[in-house]
Amino acid sequence: MRAHELHHQTGRVLVVVCDKGEEAVEAVGAALREHRIHAARVTAVGGFADAEVGWFDRETGDYRPIPVREQVEVLSLLGDVAERGGEPALHVHAVLGRADGSTVGGHLLRGRVWPTLEVMISEVAPELAKRVDPETGLALISGTGGG
Amino acid sequence: MRAHELHHQTGRVLVVVCDKGEEAVEAVGAALREHRIHAARVTAVGGFADAEVGWFDRETGDYRPIPVREQVEVLSLLGDVAERGGEPALHVHAVLGRADGSTVGGHLLRGRVWPTLEVMISEVAPELAKRVDPETGLALISGTGGG
Amino acid sequence: MRAHELHHQTGRVLVVVCDKGEEAVEAVGAALREHRIHAARVTAVGGFADAEVGWFDRETGDYRPIPVREQVEVLSLLGDVAERGGEPALHVHAVLGRADGSTVGGHLLRGRVWPTLEVMISEVAPELAKRVDPETGLALISGTGGG
Repeated sequence: MRAHELHHQTGRVLVVVCDKGEEAVEAVGAALREHRIHAARVTAVGGFADAEVGWFDRETGDYRPIPVREQVEVLSLLGDVAERGGEPALHVHAVLGRADGSTVGGHLLRGRVWPTLEVMISEVAPELAKRVDPETGLALISGTGGG
Repeated sequence: MRAHELHHQTGRVLVVVCDKGEEAVEAVGAALREHRIHAARVTAVGGFADAEVGWFDRETGDYRPIPVREQVEVLSLLGDVAERGGEPALHVHAVLGRADGSTVGGHLLRGRVWPTLEVMISEVAPELAKRVDPETGLALISGTGGG
Repeated sequence: MRAHELHHQTGRVLVVVCDKGEEAVEAVGAALREHRIHAARVTAVGGFADAEVGWFDRETGDYRPIPVREQVEVLSLLGDVAERGGEPALHVHAVLGRADGSTVGGHLLRGRVWPTLEVMISEVAPELAKRVDPETGLALISGTGGG
């Protein structure tokens, strides 16, 4: 376990409102790059017209895609932003709710917004660095940038 | 996609603890009005003795109610506060956990608290404004107040 | 309903990255004690190789354990930290996602991390106090410390 205490919270909060038909991962990534946010906590609620989530398969070393082909409530979208190769990398997981209240979830691969997605991004530090984990090939948070 | 960068985070955090038998949406709304919080991120954990969540039906333009008639853990309650008609409007989604670990979720319509609901409300700006979306009739975040 | 407005947000954010094989509740508890954080909001995403969640049973006054014996995505881990008997007490609920996208959740009793768990802890006040509720035997937030 590595704990990094961040004293210099910038206090910037970015509220991103995605419009109908937008792809959520792309839209949030564009907002992060535009506002140069490289380390943050992300939460969101809203709805998707369809989506794809993933479950990380140890055997193949990749996400197994789980398609969601119906209108769902975005019950929770939770994750973080850290830097990978000089760019902000978004890592968010989603729990989606169907018409009967049953849920489906995973690592968010893509989600087509309908009618809205209200995203709150709280910057937590100038930078959190990710490094590629040799065993899984995943980029995992390894420390604070420059530290 | 519209992104609003909020520089003037007030730093106010409201911790609302709901008592046994209280209705959660009403209790949190009362706390927001009393403390005049008009733009915030909301998270909570706790339990409900019973609840009602909703799935937004495009056809009818309204939430289809999903009753939950059993003791559930509030696994996640996530959402935001924005202004509508001069009053703070709460928009929260919930994932609820049954005795066997299965989950049910949706837009939170009402939840009767038992034994507790511990709510954290972080103010993110003096104001976020909602405007009624003509297609759905829903009030969606449209910008920062006064902007 | 009791609402505590916390004006003196310290702004400390603790980013805890759990390594493969670590037990999450223990690792986060150790980080809280080491950094002397006694009141906070906690969120996390990542994965567990196996876990145990619980549903609070009114009849027995204890958590009914729900074992999760497979690799799951940690879709949401949400909760708070408050003080109990001079020590920071972690109260977190989890929603976990299986290979087929189905979910299982409850009060997090234990989770063995794989491949990572990225935890963000935002301190909200110097102290939130928990008091044992006589009816349930649970420690519930009762007020701000010293208040």
